[in-house]
Parts: sequence; C-alpha cells; structure tokens
Amino acid sequence: MIADEAFPVEPWHIRETELRLDLLPQTESLFALSNGHIGLRGNLDEGEPHGLPGTYLNGFYEIRPLPYAEAGFGYPEEGQSIVDVTNGKLIRLLVDDEPFDVRYGELSSHERVLDLRAGTLTRAAEWTSPAGKRVEVHSTRLVSLTQRGLAAIEYVVEAVDDVLLTVQSELVANEDQPPASADPRVAAVLSHPLTPVQHEVSERGAMLIHRTRASELTLAAAMDHVVEAPGRVDLSGDAGQDWARTTVVCGLKAGERLRLVKYLAYGWSSLRSRPALRDQVAAAIAGARYTGWDGLLTAQREYLDEFWDCADVEVDGDADCQQAVRFGLFHVLQASARAERRAIAGKGLTGTGYDGHAFWDTEGFVLPVLTYTAPRAAADALRWRASTLEMARDRAAELDLRGAAFPWRTIHGEECSAYWPAGTAGFHVNADIAMAFDRYRVVTGDESLEKDCGLAVLVDTARLWLSLGHHDRYGRWRIDGVTGPDEYTAVVRDNVFTNLMAAANLRVAADACTRQPDAARALGVDTEETAAWRDAADAVHIPYDEELGVHPQCDGFTTLREWDFDQNTKYPLLLHEPYVRLYPAQVIKQADLVLAMQWQSHAFTPDQKARNVDYYERRTTRDSSLSACTQAVMCAEVGHLELAHDYAYEAALIDLRDLHHNTGDGLHLASLAGSWTALVAGFGGLRDDEGILALDPQLPGGISRLRFRLRWRGFRVTVDADHDAVTYTLRDGPEGVLTIRHSGDPLEINTRKPTRVAVRPKKPLLAPPKQPPGREPLRRWRSTVDASRNSRES
Amino acid sequence: MIADEAFPVEPWHIRETELRLDLLPQTESLFALSNGHIGLRGNLDEGEPHGLPGTYLNGFYEIRPLPYAEAGFGYPEEGQSIVDVTNGKLIRLLVDDEPFDVRYGELSSHERVLDLRAGTLTRAAEWTSPAGKRVEVHSTRLVSLTQRGLAAIEYVVEAVDDVLLTVQSELVANEDQPPASADPRVAAVLSHPLTPVQHEVSERGAMLIHRTRASELTLAAAMDHVVEAPGRVDLSGDAGQDWARTTVVCGLKAGERLRLVKYLAYGWSSLRSRPALRDQVAAAIAGARYTGWDGLLTAQREYLDEFWDCADVEVDGDADCQQAVRFGLFHVLQASARAERRAIAGKGLTGTGYDGHAFWDTEGFVLPVLTYTAPRAAADALRWRASTLEMARDRAAELDLRGAAFPWRTIHGEECSAYWPAGTAGFHVNADIAMAFDRYRVVTGDESLEKDCGLAVLVDTARLWLSLGHHDRYGRWRIDGVTGPDEYTAVVRDNVFTNLMAAANLRVAADACTRQPDAARALGVDTEETAAWRDAADAVHIPYDEELGVHPQCDGFTTLREWDFDQNTKYPLLLHEPYVRLYPAQVIKQADLVLAMQWQSHAFTPDQKARNVDYYERRTTRDSSLSACTQAVMCAEVGHLELAHDYAYEAALIDLRDLHHNTGDGLHLASLAGSWTALVAGFGGLRDDEGILALDPQLPGGISRLRFRLRWRGFRVTVDADHDAVTYTLRDGPEGVLTIRHSGDPLEINTRKPTRVAVRPKKPLLAPPKQPPGREPLRRWRSTVDASRNSRES
Repeated sequence: MIADEAFPVEPWHIRETELRLDLLPQTESLFALSNGHIGLRGNLDEGEPHGLPGTYLNGFYEIRPLPYAEAGFGYPEEGQSIVDVTNGKLIRLLVDDEPFDVRYGELSSHERVLDLRAGTLTRAAEWTSPAGKRVEVHSTRLVSLTQRGLAAIEYVVEAVDDVLLTVQSELVANEDQPPASADPRVAAVLSHPLTPVQHEVSERGAMLIHRTRASELTLAAAMDHVVEAPGRVDLSGDAGQDWARTTVVCGLKAGERLRLVKYLAYGWSSLRSRPALRDQVAAAIAGARYTGWDGLLTAQREYLDEFWDCADVEVDGDADCQQAVRFGLFHVLQASARAERRAIAGKGLTGTGYDGHAFWDTEGFVLPVLTYTAPRAAADALRWRASTLEMARDRAAELDLRGAAFPWRTIHGEECSAYWPAGTAGFHVNADIAMAFDRYRVVTGDESLEKDCGLAVLVDTARLWLSLGHHDRYGRWRIDGVTGPDEYTAVVRDNVFTNLMAAANLRVAADACTRQPDAARALGVDTEETAAWRDAADAVHIPYDEELGVHPQCDGFTTLREWDFDQNTKYPLLLHEPYVRLYPAQVIKQADLVLAMQWQSHAFTPDQKARNVDYYERRTTRDSSLSACTQAVMCAEVGHLELAHDYAYEAALIDLRDLHHNTGDGLHLASLAGSWTALVAGFGGLRDDEGILALDPQLPGGISRLRFRLRWRGFRVTVDADHDAVTYTLRDGPEGVLTIRHSGDPLEINTRKPTRVAVRPKKPLLAPPKQPPGREPLRRWRSTVDASRNSRES
Repeated sequence: MIADEAFPVEPWHIRETELRLDLLPQTESLFALSNGHIGLRGNLDEGEPHGLPGTYLNGFYEIRPLPYAEAGFGYPEEGQSIVDVTNGKLIRLLVDDEPFDVRYGELSSHERVLDLRAGTLTRAAEWTSPAGKRVEVHSTRLVSLTQRGLAAIEYVVEAVDDVLLTVQSELVANEDQPPASADPRVAAVLSHPLTPVQHEVSERGAMLIHRTRASELTLAAAMDHVVEAPGRVDLSGDAGQDWARTTVVCGLKAGERLRLVKYLAYGWSSLRSRPALRDQVAAAIAGARYTGWDGLLTAQREYLDEFWDCADVEVDGDADCQQAVRFGLFHVLQASARAERRAIAGKGLTGTGYDGHAFWDTEGFVLPVLTYTAPRAAADALRWRASTLEMARDRAAELDLRGAAFPWRTIHGEECSAYWPAGTAGFHVNADIAMAFDRYRVVTGDESLEKDCGLAVLVDTARLWLSLGHHDRYGRWRIDGVTGPDEYTAVVRDNVFTNLMAAANLRVAADACTRQPDAARALGVDTEETAAWRDAADAVHIPYDEELGVHPQCDGFTTLREWDFDQNTKYPLLLHEPYVRLYPAQVIKQADLVLAMQWQSHAFTPDQKARNVDYYERRTTRDSSLSACTQAVMCAEVGHLELAHDYAYEAALIDLRDLHHNTGDGLHLASLAGSWTALVAGFGGLRDDEGILALDPQLPGGISRLRFRLRWRGFRVTVDADHDAVTYTLRDGPEGVLTIRHSGDPLEINTRKPTRVAVRPKKPLLAPPKQPPGREPLRRWRSTVDASRNSRES
C-alpha cells in the first residue's frame, strides 16, 4: 500500500514531492501517459532505476504458446502478450562525464507532477554529481491527445555550477525485463520480442524498425530533436540494430540552460510495408515540428478542457475522492481517447499486467463512463469489438454454439484464456458487450453505431444465448455451466446476473431487429427467431430463496457451505486456497448478484435489494478490483450511505494507495472508471437500464456537495446535489426539454433554467451489514449508525 | 479396431497367425508380459519394426514439470512419467551378414502365441534372407511370476540351408521413442531419461546401471546367456554407456540348431547403493541359472495353475468371451502378482498410456477381482496405498481439508493431475480406496490388513469427507463441488455416487474404530468423532427426481439440457467437444449413477434400478473404458440380459478388438478386470455391499453355462449356473458351512456336497433401453425382445 501522505491531496494534480525508489513500480503506473494508442510508463527520463520499463502501442502484441499439462478440446493454443516496444523516452544526461543517476551523487530535491488538465508529466530535480557539480533538471513529457502517433519531451538542464553536459537521447529496443512473477495476474515475460528490420540515423534524430516473430507485426519508432543552448553545441547521431542515439554536447556556465525538445513518433502495422511505416513516422515528426512544443502543449490542454467541461465530477468535502475521481477519469480518457478501434485493456497502456488483455471490464465498467463523458471514444471501442465479430463467430462454432462467442481475454480478438472455468465459461461477456452497444444508443441517441456494426453483434450474441440456454420441463429458460462475475463460484447453473443480462441481450437484439428490419433480414433473422429470443427472455429462470428472502447468486448458492472467514484470513484467497474449495462455498470474489442489481435494477424490488446487499456484503472478499465500485452503488441505493462512501473511496484510491498491491503492474482501469460510477451512480443514483435517464442523488455525511456532468442524447446535463436539494441544469440540446426520472418520478427539465428539487431521503430497511473479518473497507467516514466501524478507522 | 478374425478363438491362447505390421502397437500391448514388477511389451525380439518399444519397472518414473498457462493454488507442479527402461528383450540375428528383419527377405510364416496357462509368449518364424538363406526362429519369452526380478528368453534358430549365424543379445538404454501424440490420454514423451552410471561386461553377459535425473532413481539391468550349438561357437561381449552386447557366432548346417537362453534381471531403488543394486541383479541371474530355463517354465505354469484353479471363469456358448475373460484375468494377474507395494497402473506395465499412472481404477475395478481370486495381490496393492498416506495427508492439508486426500493419478503417491475438475475434484477416489480396504476384510475375513495399515486410511478418509461435506439448513449432509465417475459432468453438488460412497466410507471407518478402539484412540479418534461420521452418513442427501422416478446423477442433472446426440456423432466426445458444453448437458461419459447402483446396491429399490438404468442408458456414451462392465452388471440385474451380454463382450474384448482405438498405448486393465465383473457380478449376480456373499445367477441366451470360482473367508466357492439351475460348491474352508444369499434369500451351503437350486428368473420392469445413436454396443447376440438390434448385429 501507499500511505496517505505519499501524494498531497490537490484537486487537479498528482504530485510526488520526493522520489521514493521503493514506490517506483507504482509511480511508473500512476504517472503513465497515454492517448490510447501510445502508452509510456512513468519511467525516469534516464531509464533507471526502474520497476518495469514500459512503452506500449495499443494492439501491438506477440503470440506465445499456451501450455497445458492436460489438453482439452477448444483450449486456445496461442496467447497474446503486450510487447514493451522501442523505448523512446530515454534521455541520459552526463554532467562532466558523470551520469545523472538518482542513486548516486546527491538528489537535493525531486518532484514529479501529473497535471490532469495540462495532460503532462513534469519533473524537477536538483542534483549534485558525486564530483560536486550541481544541475537542475526539468522535464515535461506528453503523449499527444491530438496527434495520435506522437509523444514529446521537453528536457531542460540548468547549470548551477559551470559544467560540461552530454545528453544522449535514445531509442532502445528489446529492453531487459525484470524476472517473471508467480502471481497469475502478472504477465508472461517476453524476452527480446523484437527482430531488427532497419535502423537509420538522420541529422537530428533516428529511426528504428522492428518486427515481432510470431505475430508478424512491424513497428517503426522515430525521434527528432530541437536543441537550444548558449554557445557551441555538438550534435551527433549513431545507431545499431536495437538502439539509436542522438548526442548533444555543450558547456554551460552557472545559470545557463540547455533545452532539448524530443519528438517521438510511433507507427505499427500488420499489413503496411516498411517504407509506408517509415514515412508514417517521418510525417508524424514533421507534423510535430510544425506544431512545435508550445503548440502541442496548447492543443493538449484544449483537448482536456473540452473533456473536463463535460466529464468533471466535483466532490466537496472529500478532497481525496475529488482528486482520485479526476485521476481515474484522466486515465480512463488516456486509455481510450485515440484507441480508435483497438481494445481498451484492463490496465490500459500503463503496464503489462494481465498480459495487456482486454476483458469484460471494458464494456462493463469503462464504457459506461465514456458513454456519458466521451461518447466518441466509447463508440470507437465498440467498433473495435464489432471488428472482431468474425473471430467470435469462429469461436462459437468451435464451441458448438450458434452466433458469436467473444473472448474472455484478448488483444487482437482471439480467445486467449487458458483456464476455461474462469474464461470461456464467463459467457456473460457477450451480454456485457451487447448491452454496451445498447447503452450507447440509448444514452447518446446515436443510432449510426447500431446500423454500422452493432446490429450484427446484437444478433449474434442473441443467437449465442439461445443456443446456450434451454427450456426445462417446466418451461423455464435456464443457462447452465456458466461462470458469472464472481470467479470464486464457477461453472454454475442459472447465475442470476448472467440470466438477467442474457435476457436483456435477447430483448435488445429483438428490438434492434424491429428497428432495422432490412438489415436484420440480411443477417438471416426472421420474426420466428426474434420471437424465440423474446420468449426465452420472458421465460428466464431467476432463482429466489423464499425462506431467506434473497436471490441466490446461482442455483443453490444459499445452501452451499458457509466459508470459514475466521480460519482463512490470507487475501486474495485465490493465492492461498484451491478452486476446488472456493467454488462450492459461499465466498465471493466480487459483486455478482449485487452487480446484477445495479445493471438490471428494474428486476429487483427495493426490499429484495436491501436483503440481497445485506446477504452478499457478509460474504464478499473484494479480492477483485471490480467489486468496490459496485458495492458502493448498491450500498448507496439501499441507504448505507457511509458504507457506500467507504467503497467509493476504495474504488477511487485503488491505485493512488496501491490497495491491491499490484499497481506496479499497471492501473486498474475498471476500478478507476468505477470511482466515477460509485459517485455518479452511487450518490447520484444514475440508472439507465430502463432507457430513461434516472437520477436520485443522496449524499453521505462526508460529502457536502456533489456536482457532475453527463451527456444524454445531445443534451449536456449538470447535476448539482447537496444533502437537501438537487439542481438539474440542461446546458443545451436539441429540443430544450428533457424528461428524466428523479427518485423514481418523472421530472421535466429544460434549457431555460435549472430545476431544483428536494432530495428524497432513503430510509434503509436494514442496519449496515458487516463484512468478512479483515475485509471491511477502509473506514474513512465516521458513521453514527454503526459504532463498530470506528475501531477500524484509518 | 481389430477384426474378429485377427486372433482365432481358443480357450487358453491368444494366437496371431500372421504378422500384421499395422497392428504392431496393439499386439505389443496384447502380448506384453509382466509380473507386476517387470513389464515387457511384446516387441519383436529383434527390436524393430515396432509401435512403441517398452520395458518398464513398476514405480520407476521420472519427474517432469507440469506447465500451466494460468496457474492456480494447489496445482501440482511436478508430474511423474513411467520410463522406458533398459531394453533387455533385444536379440538381433544375422543370417550370413543379413539382419533378420521381417520387412526384408521373405517371411513365409510367422506365429505368436500368448499362452495363458504357461505364462509365456512364443514366436515361430520361417524366414528367407534376401540372399535366399532360410532359417526358422523360435523364441519363448517369460517374465517370471516366481522370481520377481527376472525375465528369460529362449531363442532357437534352426538352419534350413547352411548358414553362418550371428546373434547379438543386447541391453539398450534410452531407446528412441515415437513422436508425441496430441491425445491427452497418451503419455508425455521422455527423451533420454536415463543417465549412465556404470557398465560392465562379463564372460557371458553384461550389466548396465543408469539413473534418472530428477527422480534420482537408480536402475540396474543385467543379462546372462546359455548357448548351445553344434560345432564351434564364438562368444564375445562389449558395452558402452547406453548399451551392452553379447555376440554369438556359429555356423550351422541345414537342420542344425542354435539355442540361446537369455536371463534378464532388473532391480531399481531410490535408496540402495550402486553396489547393492549390482549385487541384487547378479543374484537374480545366479538364481535363474540355478533354476534353469525348464525350471522357470515349470514354476511359471505351477503358479498359474494355482491361480486358475481359484480364478477361472468358464463361459459355455460364447467362445469369444471365454477367451477374453481369461485374457483379462491373465493380464490382471500379470499387473499385480509381484507388484508388492507398488501401484497397479491403469495400463499395468503394458504401455505408457496415461503416463503409467494409477487411478481409482485400481481399487474400483481391479482389486474387487483380485480380492476374490488372488487376495494376496489385493492386499499388496492396498498396502501400497496405505504407504502413501502421509503424502495424502499433506495433500489434504494443502487443500485446507482434514484427513487424507489421495491423488487422482500418481505413480509414487503425489498428486499428478494437472486438471483439477477431473482430478482433485474426483474426491470419490478416497471412498473407493476405503471401501476396497473394507471389501478385502469382508471377503477374505482377514483383519490383519486393517490392523496393519487400513484403519489409518479409513480414519483419514472419513475425516476428509467430514471436512468436505456440510449440513445444509435442513440438516441434510451434502457434498458440493466434486466430480463423480462421469467426467462429462464435473464439479457438481450431491453426486449420488460420491455421496453414497462417502457415507459408506464414514460408516466403515466408524465400525473399524469400534473394532479397534485402542488403535483408533492412538489416531486421535474419540466417540464424538465417530458419532459425527455416522450422523453425517445417516443424513446424507440423495437427490431423487420424483416426477421422473429416477435419481439424478447429481443435483439438478435431470433438468439439464438434453445433449443432441444426432448432431454430435464423433466419439469420444472429449476430443470433439469442449468441457464447457459437455458439463452442463445430460451426456455421460461413463456409468456413474449406474455404478452407484452396483457398488451400493442396497440403497436402491429394484424399480428404481430399472428406471435409472433405462434413463442413463439413453445418455451414456461409454467414452470411458470403465463403463461397459458396469452397464453389463446393472443391465443384467434389471433383466436386460442380452444387452448385458453385449456389454460384457465389449468390456472383455476392449483390447483384443481395440475397441477404443488406443490399445497400442497399453491395455485397459480396469475393463479387462471388468470382464470378470460383467460375468460374475452381472450374470452371476455377485454383490458384497452388505457384507454377505450374495449371488443371483441369470444367463443370457448366448451363454449356456457359466462356472466361476471365488474365495470367501477361507472358503473356495464354485458357482455353476445354467439357464435353469445353479449349483454352489463349497470346496473347502474353515467351518464347512457358509450362509450366502441366493437371489435375495439366505441359503446355507456346505463342504459335504454341492447345493443345487433353481434360478429365479427376472422379469424386466421395462423394455430394453436404446443407447445414443451410434453408441449401441456391438450386438453379438440376437434378441427376441428388441428387434431393432438386428440391424446393427455384427
């Protein structure tokens, strides 16, 4: 964990005031810059020390064999792993022949700042070389949100004493990687994945072209420089197969400055020729030189201003959450802004965790946020999914199913999950994808995505469900042998989450076919088929335990053995207990039934929600980072506002506090997105599962005011709530009037003036529940309801 | 498959009348010789051509890493694979410088005979060399049942023309292996597993000592020769690290013979020194020379005479089954006779299939036969299991369970299963083991085994079950997350087979503690603990589908999707369908609920049995070789005698006809044992699950008379049944009187004279069931009941 004081709480910055070598892996992830196409971990300019050197290009992966000691039909034979590509961030500095290395000499000050509005990572260091020469180093790094293939670094050295400076700005391929970990969530280590193809040195820079062996992807990286210094400056270039270097040498007197701007361009392709790639990166460099460093900075800020204008969440009274939710939104934007029909990986482009794979996290947790805040990025991500439809159809055929079976984890589109009970059996990913398409249509009002590519996805996921489920002898439509979100109970029957999502998938597919009859017919859909979808959806079996008054997460769940939380206290349990023990017990990794109550809110009564939350809170370990945000939302809905606040804090601070101890492998994008969800869906009450913008603000004691912005069908809506009232402002939009639902009732709001209504306070049905011992969320907020919390307050 | 005419039907021999090179892998398995300690595949004397060269020593294995693309807690990291050890079978012959190779020159006749009473494999070949020189070669091979470390070969060459003969008798280590297969049931290929330690050449033979790298087992192989020939004979020896050779050269005139007797000794140890092993094999050779070839032959036959005297099954009217059941019994004996506290592997020592691992097959299918026919071998096998108890305790602790968890598959005792849903989750292996101990005590009346080592096994398996199961809120004792015998439905709740066997395990453990109170107390058992075992057993939940009137194989089974047998016609399904599809469907690999009805017969009413057989017959693929024998038994019990006969044929002929297309990897020991069970428990009606010898003979139309022998508590019982009557003969025994159960009623039989009683004919409740299309058993026997069979008769 990272202590609270590591980063001072500021609304728009993440500031590290001194260099913590023990936290390098974590800060490299936290300070990662990305535009969704290029990702640069926050490695120090000079490359070392480092936790994990990392430069990534979205979709650039290598294939590796997946070994099985006991093979099985349909197991994927090839995995895909994100590649640490040519590192262009490297700028080494020598002060009178002594390398600037923070481990030597004396570092009198060191500050790094991630600026969430500027979109830059700045660094300021005052260093005295072992020989006693003093310099100040200032660097500013950005990955351009406006020029997709471009990153840039401004590197300024100011002499405090008279010095001779040598700056080596580099491109390095096939960097050494740290040794492999035994934790299955960490990536496989690829050793020297890049084969050199070409290297070129130009007047002020260089270019390296490499290629992967098995995936046969070609990558070009180029750098170019602008150098400013008083007096004589020597500029020279050199390159080898795996490296290129531009060397700048100059003498500075005390007070003089050397300024270097490094433009860094990347391009890759599976199809385009080496010359085409070479020209592509050269063009990116030329564009950068034309725009110039200041132009890049300005464009970056303008891009972000526009984003924040419609995405910002203001949290008065809780400065930690304020900072964290912006940090989360910033990284969600970074992961998606210019991904442009590539996947949004579970860790974005911030590390190699989970091999750089995208999961259901994308459609389930990240896209809801983007749909309301940066809908174009959401559409791009959905277009990526749709582009993999043919692979999903092939996979369904391999599984002897109809329609399409999207992969549990992938980079390129093929299934890469090597453990089917928590992979292929997680069929709900297909409904998560389908519902993300539908949410996009409902929220944005934009039907073009569905027309272009969404309908085929809806149809083929519906076909999958119909072939996967069956009607039992009582006419109930059931889905057996699947794994829901909770990976501690797998290969079950009638997982409520899956069944509800599948039914919703079937219904939205049928409705989409009604909207697009010609296109549906072209896909071979007739009214018999859509009727079968609707019938199955209507007959879906949702198990309910009448005696306990709760929904079992899956058939029989509530009569499984209770887990002994007192005897098993090492978390995450998956590293300490075998699946054979976890699966048949009432122990839950992450919100599952509780997530169903958020995403399919209309299917549960308020009393059911209250009892279900109570039941599952007591059995949920939150061993997955996908849980806290959902628990925040549902605890808020049933009136446990303080507990919800605890979970919102956990979701938001997951990486800033390294709560899961693996931030060094990359950020938890879904949880960061979930910090928005915890606030907006939790304390704002946002729901959209009935096609209507439903809100129901309700704040915990620790938040005095919550203000957030949404896009809804061309409108921009601002919701501004305190403990007593909420003000809805319709900033603009096509008609000027919008009917929303406030606390369950219709409410018309308009562009003329804000609408202020009273908060309708909720009375919780039950007292706040306990969690498994040791798995209580960090208690940030005193509660008057549950005195026992105080003992664990931190 | 092997056509019916490949081996002429003879009661006591398996005869191959011409050499079928395409069937070499299969005949190498069928003609394998073993005593449970040494196993020699039926490779040709000259070594090639071959399907799979194979020489095995029970318990001699190498460790190999088990790879996982996605690791999990508790997955075994090391596997164990049987090693093809130093091949001492090799005798190469050169006729005037041309090697005797059946692929060259002209093979005018070739016959091989496995003699089930002599315990030998003989071969006779007439060969003309490419240069036109004719010889006759006769070889006889045995693996001694009386001298455990010894095999011997008599090799006789008779000259038809005048020839110069060179015979090279060899020891060869690290033979090349054929390339690996993609079939998961085939073994991993070990390349050059043996490291040379020492090689020595003596006057008439040689010795090689090798060692495995990871398992650190040392192996000594020695050979010695007796040579007889007219005229001058040159004998010379030579050796390298991985080979040793004794060369015999002599000239023969037409009609003269060269006779070579080769004695072959093996020893291995994990502990004993190289000199000790060297001396051990030298002593075995010395013993062999003392006994001589004829002495070995005589002892072999006497050993087998004694076995057959109390094990033979006579099947009048069905010559195929007659031959096959003796073939099966012979191989069961070969796999176990001198195993002496080593495992009995699923394929015995006949091939590398399943890596040479032992499964529940041993206790579940092989030991019941041995318990009635060669109880000392059964006791030895159980002592081996008991010797692995400490490893099983460690495994249970790793799984967070009490007691002992025996491995799903192993050679040495550690869990080697790399796929837990069909490995670790198959907890029933523990009850299978416990019940084998109890069956041994009940059938033999010998309590010493329980006293020596069985009690601890019973106690620790009972503890395992109690920690694995739990009482639900209705007080029902349930076991969740386990896999029963049927591997097409896994990780289920309340598998009826498992629950009944677990309950039986708990009861016999409690009873054993009552019998041995002091020993139980020493194991920490008190009366509270045994009471808890009995209470759980009494409360065990056995799901029953009242509407269908059948037992679901596991909770909810009868409402799972029906498998589409018409669309999925490639078998075995596991090679063509993913588990994610098989598990949640009503498709069954092998008898599971039906096996429960055999092993826990008393827990089902006759009507339930009839309906259950009917239900499961229609859904069972028999993709496992462990199924046909059980289906034979239960079809017989419910009155489908002709269908039972079909299954008995399938179980018995599995390898002689290569019905599963993998006899080349080794024989299916459990199915071969099952041929005895199909006849004796099926048509003889043998049951022992209530502690009483229960019989109920009932013959199908195709068998006119069935005569079998059993040992029961010191008695030897002969059961001789035809269609009308059965004669029970008590050959000897401690008291002279024995009360058995005949067709459900008590019957007293005595040593004075045979007791003849009428067969009580069964009227089947239901018509014979159909099987999935394409999975009907081979219809050997016309039935008047089901006309549809005729179309598939073969």
